[in-house]
Amino acid sequence: MKIGLAQINPIVGDLEGNSKKIIQCASKAKEAGADLVVFPELIVTGYPPQDLLENPFFLEAVDHVIDEIGKAVPQDIGILLGAPLQNKETVGKRLYNAAILLEGGVRKAVVLKQLLPTFDVFDENRYFESAQECKVVEWRGRKLGVHICEDMWNNEEQAPYYLYKDNPIDVLAAQGAEIFINISASPYYAGKHEVRNRLIKESCQEHSIPFVYVNQVGANTELLFDGDSRVHSADGKLIALAKSFEEDLLIWEEGTEGTVQTPKAEISIVHDALVCGIKDYFEKTGAFSKALVGLSGGIDSAVTCALAVEALGADRVIGVTMPSKYSSSGSVDDSVALAEAYGLTLHKIPIVPAVSAFEGMLTDVFEGTQPGIAEENIQARTRGLLLMALSNKFNYLLLTTGNKSEMSVGYATLYGDMNGGLAVLSDVFKMQVYELAEYVNESAGRELIPRSTIEKAPSAELRPDQKDEDSLPPYPVLDHILSLYIESQKDLDQIIAVTGYDSELVEDILRKVDRNEYKRRQAPPGLRISRKAFGVGRRVPIVMRWNRSAYASLI
Amino acid sequence: MKIGLAQINPIVGDLEGNSKKIIQCASKAKEAGADLVVFPELIVTGYPPQDLLENPFFLEAVDHVIDEIGKAVPQDIGILLGAPLQNKETVGKRLYNAAILLEGGVRKAVVLKQLLPTFDVFDENRYFESAQECKVVEWRGRKLGVHICEDMWNNEEQAPYYLYKDNPIDVLAAQGAEIFINISASPYYAGKHEVRNRLIKESCQEHSIPFVYVNQVGANTELLFDGDSRVHSADGKLIALAKSFEEDLLIWEEGTEGTVQTPKAEISIVHDALVCGIKDYFEKTGAFSKALVGLSGGIDSAVTCALAVEALGADRVIGVTMPSKYSSSGSVDDSVALAEAYGLTLHKIPIVPAVSAFEGMLTDVFEGTQPGIAEENIQARTRGLLLMALSNKFNYLLLTTGNKSEMSVGYATLYGDMNGGLAVLSDVFKMQVYELAEYVNESAGRELIPRSTIEKAPSAELRPDQKDEDSLPPYPVLDHILSLYIESQKDLDQIIAVTGYDSELVEDILRKVDRNEYKRRQAPPGLRISRKAFGVGRRVPIVMRWNRSAYASLI
Repeated sequence: MKIGLAQINPIVGDLEGNSKKIIQCASKAKEAGADLVVFPELIVTGYPPQDLLENPFFLEAVDHVIDEIGKAVPQDIGILLGAPLQNKETVGKRLYNAAILLEGGVRKAVVLKQLLPTFDVFDENRYFESAQECKVVEWRGRKLGVHICEDMWNNEEQAPYYLYKDNPIDVLAAQGAEIFINISASPYYAGKHEVRNRLIKESCQEHSIPFVYVNQVGANTELLFDGDSRVHSADGKLIALAKSFEEDLLIWEEGTEGTVQTPKAEISIVHDALVCGIKDYFEKTGAFSKALVGLSGGIDSAVTCALAVEALGADRVIGVTMPSKYSSSGSVDDSVALAEAYGLTLHKIPIVPAVSAFEGMLTDVFEGTQPGIAEENIQARTRGLLLMALSNKFNYLLLTTGNKSEMSVGYATLYGDMNGGLAVLSDVFKMQVYELAEYVNESAGRELIPRSTIEKAPSAELRPDQKDEDSLPPYPVLDHILSLYIESQKDLDQIIAVTGYDSELVEDILRKVDRNEYKRRQAPPGLRISRKAFGVGRRVPIVMRWNRSAYASLI
Repeated sequence: MKIGLAQINPIVGDLEGNSKKIIQCASKAKEAGADLVVFPELIVTGYPPQDLLENPFFLEAVDHVIDEIGKAVPQDIGILLGAPLQNKETVGKRLYNAAILLEGGVRKAVVLKQLLPTFDVFDENRYFESAQECKVVEWRGRKLGVHICEDMWNNEEQAPYYLYKDNPIDVLAAQGAEIFINISASPYYAGKHEVRNRLIKESCQEHSIPFVYVNQVGANTELLFDGDSRVHSADGKLIALAKSFEEDLLIWEEGTEGTVQTPKAEISIVHDALVCGIKDYFEKTGAFSKALVGLSGGIDSAVTCALAVEALGADRVIGVTMPSKYSSSGSVDDSVALAEAYGLTLHKIPIVPAVSAFEGMLTDVFEGTQPGIAEENIQARTRGLLLMALSNKFNYLLLTTGNKSEMSVGYATLYGDMNGGLAVLSDVFKMQVYELAEYVNESAGRELIPRSTIEKAPSAELRPDQKDEDSLPPYPVLDHILSLYIESQKDLDQIIAVTGYDSELVEDILRKVDRNEYKRRQAPPGLRISRKAFGVGRRVPIVMRWNRSAYASLI
């Protein structure tokens, strides 16, 4: 059997556009001689459709579109695709997450998803009823072990426990499946390629069955799908692999083995992920003429700008430098150098007039107080206002430049530098931002991001001689603590034990993370590249009073 | 048996504070002669604890605190309370949502929740494993039908289908339960008292069993818990009822009947809900000195201000009026009248200097463009910046004043009038805001909110002679469409059919709702008073392209 792995990039809710892609890709697969072409999970709606799944009219339209696809594709090829299907029983959630096999305009088989991820960014129990069982699909004399995304994940990767009592992979093997076929919408985080390698290899080896894995590609708001579609042989070897972060159609003939390129370094994949995230946000919303980046002369805005240029081209990125009286000369010079290296339009708008106006307007009411955070934030918010004025006037997408380290501890001004439609680096720790900067320059073979930007001490430049390290520990230390707390779910005593850092320092950082939930709640959506990003996958109460130190003796 | 219904107001994560309340309330119940005192669902952690439940150290502390409570309460009274319990099996989610019966320092019985709501604002499948069965608790020779919140909701209220296959209420009755005891954390929406009346009455009548219902009270971020704890007799009659939106301890002796007051009008409960929401946000965060409201002279800011005064007292509310060159004289006069009526401090800060400064700074880059939204937003954002400057300087909680009608269609400026820590009216449609204004004045027996504020045509006053109705249909029409779309999940053709409104108008409004998801994603948390509020309970993709008109013929 010849199988096409159709790794396509859908737009959520775009039934017309997604169908069109499916039909075109099915034709191409047919031309390449495929018997079966496999599309990702929920590809008809795009993933994640979220509460669109609660709109009965949308669901009617989905049902209609599935049949239209069945009629429009070549009639002598099997089309396996993911879509929500209505639950006709009078009990349970109203939908199933289904894989549908179309052939000759007819639904030849339907497989329902059994394991419904409801953790981190996933909310599948919100919409779907879990299938009671899984069953191989018998088609053209073959037994296909068709299953959906999470259905393949209930193995020892979840150690020390199993999240679900069922394991569809084992059941399908016991039923005599000859090929595992998994359709997925499985978002990227750094390292996921290797995680999938291990997981799929184990399933193949345990059952001596080859594995076809087809995953969605592209970005939908904060979730970045790398694709990473592939085939493993029955002995677990990776024998065919689609491009990452690009649409692709792999054709695999049973019994053959292709060569697979050595995987790229993770920083390179993170880079591609972020570029894809910007590009797809921009193009899928279709709402913007260009992207706009406020350039401070610092590393975060420089890297954001570099990624934006790679995503959209230099002619669709505008830079703005907005010096204040506290800005170093480097702030402007480095921004000019960056803009020149990329050939960008750069506006310069000094913020002094508005800041002075605000100071004047607030003289009476601020009388008798000392300058502090309020005054610093006026500067950041004046810049935020200017950026939004440009965004509104010229239909620019404002890109937010703050990194994960800052967002964690609230070292950012709400309604100031946090302004924007998309937060490019909000899941990228500061030390990773440096790595990205070096990667950008190395890939280009020249200094696009000025060396001085990379080497200067990080500063918000909101008061004279301010440095980040006045308020925060050095970034390698901060990132280490944050990564243990946020991504590895370690708490105070464990972090102290692992790192040897001072307990007051660790406690202070953890407290800062907890207390800044209110800022993050109002942050723009951010591109997710880690196992635990801020945003939809992390739900922490704003109003809470968890006093960990009162229970420190328990550990 | 004498039962205490302990309707208390916890703070999420505050294990020390919540335990203290539980212990005090248990002592009071004991003094009143109760045999058993019943606390709400997850009362040890407060509801909803969200991802605090993923912190293993927090869970250790919870387990410890349950035992500490058991030791500290009177030893000869039964304490039934809700808490998360760790799942010790190697399969499934790591927690159960449990009711624990403590007596003499010992866990005498544990009941696990079977039906886990995972819809709207609820994410229980994210954290909890569903119990396989329910079982009556045998205690002091009695059979208690103990169950948890959603366990009582799987009846015909869910028509035309059942959400779950199990119905714990029926099973408990079949096991010989003598009293149903439900512990809940069931948030308020307008009309919920009556919904509970019907539901509980039906369960009593079906099984001839009396019903004790104990619900959490108070606000946690956006969720408002009314309490509404009560007892129904075996024939379904409501025979005891706790105060709404206040802590209460009801003592009920089996076989007796108390008198229950006639329920208040819904607008009065909505009012109390919003006042509770402001008060609890302010006090539970403990982060603010006073609340701050930008007063425009319009109805939304006046009502927000009125509610804030009721929640916090006039000495803890500050008003600011920020006229522009487009402001009518009424904007300031009406704000002054409101502040005088309440005895508030009112600052006046005209925005002209900053707006002029911005216009000057943007002259070059805006050259050749026509004034429009960008210039209007500069005014709104200048006000937003001033309010945040006051908030930062004096530690004020900035209250956001936008209503649900505006938030639905995006008639609000992101980083401008949307600024704030808490959105008081974001779930209150404009026509309900008028009702609240009338209610406030009627309750006071005098004109607190100026008549001219109530009667003027709504306007953002961002350009000369601007009126909301220039951009939007009249509010009764707009609210009608929005309520059908957002709260009743009707789509285009159904709304046209129900209302008879022009199809282009309806389509335009629906499109506006869909396209403004990006603004709402960055909105402050808002107090929920409807079945479907923006925020945690409504999850709609920002990047999407659902083109309903392409499928209009399907209906």
